[in-house]
Amino acid sequence: MESLSLESIREIADRAEKNVKIPAYPRTVLNIMNAIRYAEDIFWISRYSREPFNLVVEIVKILKEEGYVSYDDGKIRLTERGEKILADTGYEAKIVECDKCRGRRVPLDIISWDVIKDFIEIQKNRPQPIQEYDQGYVTPETTLARVAYMYYRGDLKGKDIIMLGDDDLVSIAIGLTHYARRIAVIDIDTRLTDFISKVSDEYGLNIEILAMDLRKPIPSEIEKKFDVFQTDPLETVPGFRAFVGRGIATLRGERCAGYFYLTLIDSSIDKWRDIQNILVHEFKVVITEIIPDFSEYINWGYF
Amino acid sequence: MESLSLESIREIADRAEKNVKIPAYPRTVLNIMNAIRYAEDIFWISRYSREPFNLVVEIVKILKEEGYVSYDDGKIRLTERGEKILADTGYEAKIVECDKCRGRRVPLDIISWDVIKDFIEIQKNRPQPIQEYDQGYVTPETTLARVAYMYYRGDLKGKDIIMLGDDDLVSIAIGLTHYARRIAVIDIDTRLTDFISKVSDEYGLNIEILAMDLRKPIPSEIEKKFDVFQTDPLETVPGFRAFVGRGIATLRGERCAGYFYLTLIDSSIDKWRDIQNILVHEFKVVITEIIPDFSEYINWGYF
Repeated sequence: MESLSLESIREIADRAEKNVKIPAYPRTVLNIMNAIRYAEDIFWISRYSREPFNLVVEIVKILKEEGYVSYDDGKIRLTERGEKILADTGYEAKIVECDKCRGRRVPLDIISWDVIKDFIEIQKNRPQPIQEYDQGYVTPETTLARVAYMYYRGDLKGKDIIMLGDDDLVSIAIGLTHYARRIAVIDIDTRLTDFISKVSDEYGLNIEILAMDLRKPIPSEIEKKFDVFQTDPLETVPGFRAFVGRGIATLRGERCAGYFYLTLIDSSIDKWRDIQNILVHEFKVVITEIIPDFSEYINWGYF
Repeated sequence: MESLSLESIREIADRAEKNVKIPAYPRTVLNIMNAIRYAEDIFWISRYSREPFNLVVEIVKILKEEGYVSYDDGKIRLTERGEKILADTGYEAKIVECDKCRGRRVPLDIISWDVIKDFIEIQKNRPQPIQEYDQGYVTPETTLARVAYMYYRGDLKGKDIIMLGDDDLVSIAIGLTHYARRIAVIDIDTRLTDFISKVSDEYGLNIEILAMDLRKPIPSEIEKKFDVFQTDPLETVPGFRAFVGRGIATLRGERCAGYFYLTLIDSSIDKWRDIQNILVHEFKVVITEIIPDFSEYINWGYF
């Protein structure tokens, strides 16, 4: 028999699911309440809970109505009643990551400090994102960590690398290492590709800008020409299939690699399952690692 | 056009594939040569290269025949010729993990030092493995790191947890935290379950030993009764399907979790793909994280 506390929590999940049409379980509510132990801001609560943003907003709203949560000066906190019901269920996720690598497994400084310093300076002048194109970019530390991870994994040095979209300026960070054999970038935003071109000329990075429309099939000049691709795909199932499918089409063959970034903020874990089915069953690739919470976006906390 | 160096490397891959009937690519040989930069012992070379053990043995043998590798006092090293051919290809994987969390993302000490100290003491008296049952067990640090990760992920506190096989004494480490609501263990080796029982009595851990044969279907008394399962499955496709499939059958339903451990030493990345297809397409679960090199086995380096 369920405890009264768990029953109340199940009711909240059911109400939220009805309102926003995203699957919600008691565990969803517990994840969100637990996340409020670690963050006061709705974006970070969404990240820590690993639940989709819209569902988090709805559940926090219901938790407030039920007196489990308070908003003060824009800060979300558990009330005494909230603390009590959460303790009653015995639930806790201890959200503490390694403070050295920030849970990314690989130390940033396997790439040289000169690269790190130059990249931090260069990216300060980046064109600011246009809302229509994207939902913001990652912190410079995240971009550098992505490049460090590629180096760790043998997907940087001596490799031909293509970026399908490059809001995050990964091409520049790769270029600064001078480790890649070839770097190519496709992006729809010419302000971005102009910026990358200018930096490439100035620092001698040899980055090629390819003028192509990613909505069309991959042209033969880039088909099977690369060892590694990177993309931050649209987080819809068709968007994912288009970006990552085209990425795979650029690869030479076996033992090549793709890096892409998904959140649990835009995508529910259920959507991840659909995406994994596409990867494993349809594209017939293998997933070698999934590192949660690798990326941090610059606009978090500014909404 | 391929360089001469890459051509020689491709020949080595082809020869090895013919001899041991495991898919081998130029990248395979490069991964192994790169790993020799970081380790002198065949087990660690296999781990660092992420290539299957039998293939690594074969390729190292060929590399020696070709004068790219030397054995001295049982230590494997690149010769000058080996260094040169590897440098020629421009390949490098910088195998350096975070020295704080050892690439495991989560600090060990989110579980208390008392638990860590007690577990280290207790496991010293464990029954030694029988070759017929298993291929050795993990370091005590690995067992504790698994429990820390469960805690981080919300799969420890207040949870009903079942171990399908427990060579690694995870049940004892979980018990010492006193965080789980229920802990059950199924294992064929009565020396192991007797040891776990004795420790459980002595420390008041409430671990249940279930006498069941995992080769038969899951009995109704444990079907859909748990929130979390753990298993270190046999690394064959049928072995994986049996262990993890039975694990999933013990879970209550949505948003429950399974933890299992695969190597790239026993399983090639191709076998991983088959296994992921079973998980995602057949079992219809989602993979939330894959943390490479999480586990270290106690017998490594003693062969």
